[in-house]
Amino acid sequence: MSIRVAVLGHGVVGSGVAEILLHQKDCIFAQRKEELELAYILDVRSFPDLPYASLFVQDINTILQDESVSVVAECIGGATVAYDLVSACLQAKKSVCTSNKELIATRGNELFAMAKENGVNLLYEACVGGGIPVLRPIQTCFGANNICKVSGILNGTTNYILSRMQETGCKMEEALKEAQQKGYAEAVPTADIEGHDAARKISILASMATGKYVSPFDLPVCGIQNVTAEDLKYASVYDCSVKLIAEFEAENEGAQLSVGPCLVPNSHLLAHVNGVQNAVRVVGDMVGETVFYGPGAGKNPTASAVVSDMITLTNLAPVERIYWSSEPAKISEKEKTADYYVRFSGQSGAKPLSGFENVSFLSDPENQATCAVVVKNTSRSRLEKALADANIGLIARVMA
Amino acid sequence: MSIRVAVLGHGVVGSGVAEILLHQKDCIFAQRKEELELAYILDVRSFPDLPYASLFVQDINTILQDESVSVVAECIGGATVAYDLVSACLQAKKSVCTSNKELIATRGNELFAMAKENGVNLLYEACVGGGIPVLRPIQTCFGANNICKVSGILNGTTNYILSRMQETGCKMEEALKEAQQKGYAEAVPTADIEGHDAARKISILASMATGKYVSPFDLPVCGIQNVTAEDLKYASVYDCSVKLIAEFEAENEGAQLSVGPCLVPNSHLLAHVNGVQNAVRVVGDMVGETVFYGPGAGKNPTASAVVSDMITLTNLAPVERIYWSSEPAKISEKEKTADYYVRFSGQSGAKPLSGFENVSFLSDPENQATCAVVVKNTSRSRLEKALADANIGLIARVMA
Repeated sequence: MSIRVAVLGHGVVGSGVAEILLHQKDCIFAQRKEELELAYILDVRSFPDLPYASLFVQDINTILQDESVSVVAECIGGATVAYDLVSACLQAKKSVCTSNKELIATRGNELFAMAKENGVNLLYEACVGGGIPVLRPIQTCFGANNICKVSGILNGTTNYILSRMQETGCKMEEALKEAQQKGYAEAVPTADIEGHDAARKISILASMATGKYVSPFDLPVCGIQNVTAEDLKYASVYDCSVKLIAEFEAENEGAQLSVGPCLVPNSHLLAHVNGVQNAVRVVGDMVGETVFYGPGAGKNPTASAVVSDMITLTNLAPVERIYWSSEPAKISEKEKTADYYVRFSGQSGAKPLSGFENVSFLSDPENQATCAVVVKNTSRSRLEKALADANIGLIARVMA
Repeated sequence: MSIRVAVLGHGVVGSGVAEILLHQKDCIFAQRKEELELAYILDVRSFPDLPYASLFVQDINTILQDESVSVVAECIGGATVAYDLVSACLQAKKSVCTSNKELIATRGNELFAMAKENGVNLLYEACVGGGIPVLRPIQTCFGANNICKVSGILNGTTNYILSRMQETGCKMEEALKEAQQKGYAEAVPTADIEGHDAARKISILASMATGKYVSPFDLPVCGIQNVTAEDLKYASVYDCSVKLIAEFEAENEGAQLSVGPCLVPNSHLLAHVNGVQNAVRVVGDMVGETVFYGPGAGKNPTASAVVSDMITLTNLAPVERIYWSSEPAKISEKEKTADYYVRFSGQSGAKPLSGFENVSFLSDPENQATCAVVVKNTSRSRLEKALADANIGLIARVMA
C-alpha cells in the first residue's frame, strides 16, 4: 500500500522534498512500513527536463479533488498565495506541513483552527532551525517543564555573514556578496539582515513556550545592518563573538522578547556556532539548559524536516497537535538591565557616560573619533538618553 | 478527570519523578489537559517523614491489581529486579517508561515484544542523554534520513572528571573524589569510568539508527582509566580536548562501533561540552550534522525526561513505538584508519615508529622516558604491533 502526497512549489525546498520522496524511498519505507508516493507537484512553471516532469500540475483543484492524496507539503513561502492554498487543502481534509515561518507566525492561528475544524493536522517543524528538530522536542519532551527561556541563533544568512566578518575582518558588503554567491543569502536579503526572519521564528517558539500567541510584530527587532568589522574587533577584545540573538524569556510580568545583535562570551556554546549553522538554547525549570544545533537552512536539511513531518502526518493521531491558543500572550513592558556594548562617535570619550558606574573601554580612551565601551548593568534606554547628542553606531547586549 | 500513575523506586531519579508529578501539576495539566495523579511509589524502604509518605507501598501487586493505574515509571536500575517488575507491569497491561539504560540495552528486545503483545507501550527517553531529548527526535524528526553516524559524550561522570583535570591540571583520583562529593559519581564508579555506561547508551542509539539490535557486549569498550594529567597537556599542545566518545557509524560492511577516549579538536563543538553536560551528534544523509546538548544526568533533568514520557504514554497511539527489531545488526569487522594519539615509554623516542610516514611529536623528542605522538592515518592494530615492546600508556583516536 502507498500513501499519496503532493508538494506545493518547486523552489529550493520544494525540489528538495520531491527529490527526497523519490530517492529516499527505502528509509521512508523502513520507518513508515508504507510507501509515500509523490502524486503531484504544483508550480506555475513547468520543468519538462526533469525525470519527474509528468507530476507537475498548475491547478490546485487537481490536488484538492484527488481524494487519494492525504498529505500536502507547502513550500511556496509568503503569507498570501501560500495562505490561500494551505486553507484550501485543509478544507479539503488534507493534512499539511510547511516550512513557511512567515505563514505560521502571522496566520498560524487561523490555520490551526481550520485544521482542527476539518479533523486534519498542520505541522511546521521546518519553520524553525531548518533541519534541526526543535519544535517537536519542545512539545513532546519537555512536558514536565515550564519553559523559562529560549535564545537562539535562528538565521543562517546573518550568522554566515557575521562569522565571515569575524574570520576574515572583511566588511559586511563583502561577506553578503559571498553569501549570495554561495546561495546562503537571497538577492534581496532584507528580511534576514534586518532580523524579521529571526523575529518570526522566535515568535513561533515563544507561542509554543507560553501556549499563547506571540505576534512577530509585538517584539523589538534589530538586525545586523549596523554591525561593522570594527565592532567584531572590539567584541573579540572583550573575548566575545557577535551573534544575532533572538530571545524569549518568561517573566512574572509577561514574556520578554527581543531580536538583536549580541556580544556572546566565547565561553558560551552559542559563540561557537558558525557559518549557516543555527542553534536553539531552551531552558526548562526542571531540565535546565539544552541546546539544539544543526543546519538552519539549505535545500536538503529543510526538506528533511518537511518530509519527516509528512511521514508523521500519515500516522499521527489527530489529538497530537502542536498548536498554541489564539489568545495573545502577555508581553512584559518592563525594561531589564544588562551589560551593553555601545560604539558611538561625535562626543569626546566617555564624558556622556560619566553617570554610569562601571564602564570598560574597548577602544583607545584617547581616541576622540570612535568610542567603544561596555557599560555594565544598565538599561538600554538610559544609555540611549545619555548618548542622545552622540552618534550611536551600535548598541548590543552582552549575553549573561 | 485524572490519570493515575505509579513510580517504582525512590532513589535519585524516582524521588525526582515523584516531586515533579506533585509540584509541576500546572504545567503538566496545561499540556495534557488532564491531571497525572501519583497513586503509588514502590520502594523496599519507607519514608515516613515525606509529605507524600502515604503513597509508599512495598508490594508490586498493589500496583498491578489497581486497574486505574495505567502508566508506571521504573527508576530502580539494574537488569534483574527491574526486569521482573517491568515485565509484570507490561503483562498487567500498564505502559512503562524507564531511565534504566542497562535494562533497555541488554533486555529491551524481550520487553518490547512483551509491550507489543499486551497492547501497551514502553518508552525510554531518559536512558540516553538524561534530560536531553534525543531518542524521540531521532525517531520522529529524521524519517527522511539514513542515520550515518552518531558520536556522543554520553557519560556525565567521566566528562566531569576530564573537564576538571583539564581545567586544574589535577590527577584523576582528585577529580573523581570531587565528582563523588558533588554527587556526580557513584561510590563504585566502575561502570562510568570503564565506559560500560556509555557503551549501553551507544548500543541503544545504534539499535535505533539501524533498526536492528546492537548489543553493548558487541563493541570495543575502553574507559578513561588510563588517561593522565599528562595526556591532557599533550592534547592541548595539539589544540585538542580529551573526551570519552561513544560512536556509531554505518558502513557498507556493517556498523562500526566504539567507546574510548578521543582527542577532539577545539574547533569542534564537542570539545566545548564540559562538566556533567552531555552532547549527542547525529549525522543524517539529508539533514547533515545536528547536535543535541544538555544535562546528561542529575535528579531533575532525568526525571524531566521520565515525566515527559509518562505524559506521552497517556496519549500515545499504540502504533507509535520507538522499538528496533530483535534481529542483530551486522557489525563491521573492518579496521578503519585514523589519526591516533599514543603515549608510551620504555622505548627510545620514535624508533619503533620509524615505519610510519607521518608522526608528530607532542613530547620532547629527546626525552627517553615518555613519548607522546600523533601518528596520522594508521590503524590501531598496526600501532599496537609496532609498539609491542614498549609500555603503551594510552592510545586515543583523534576525531576527524
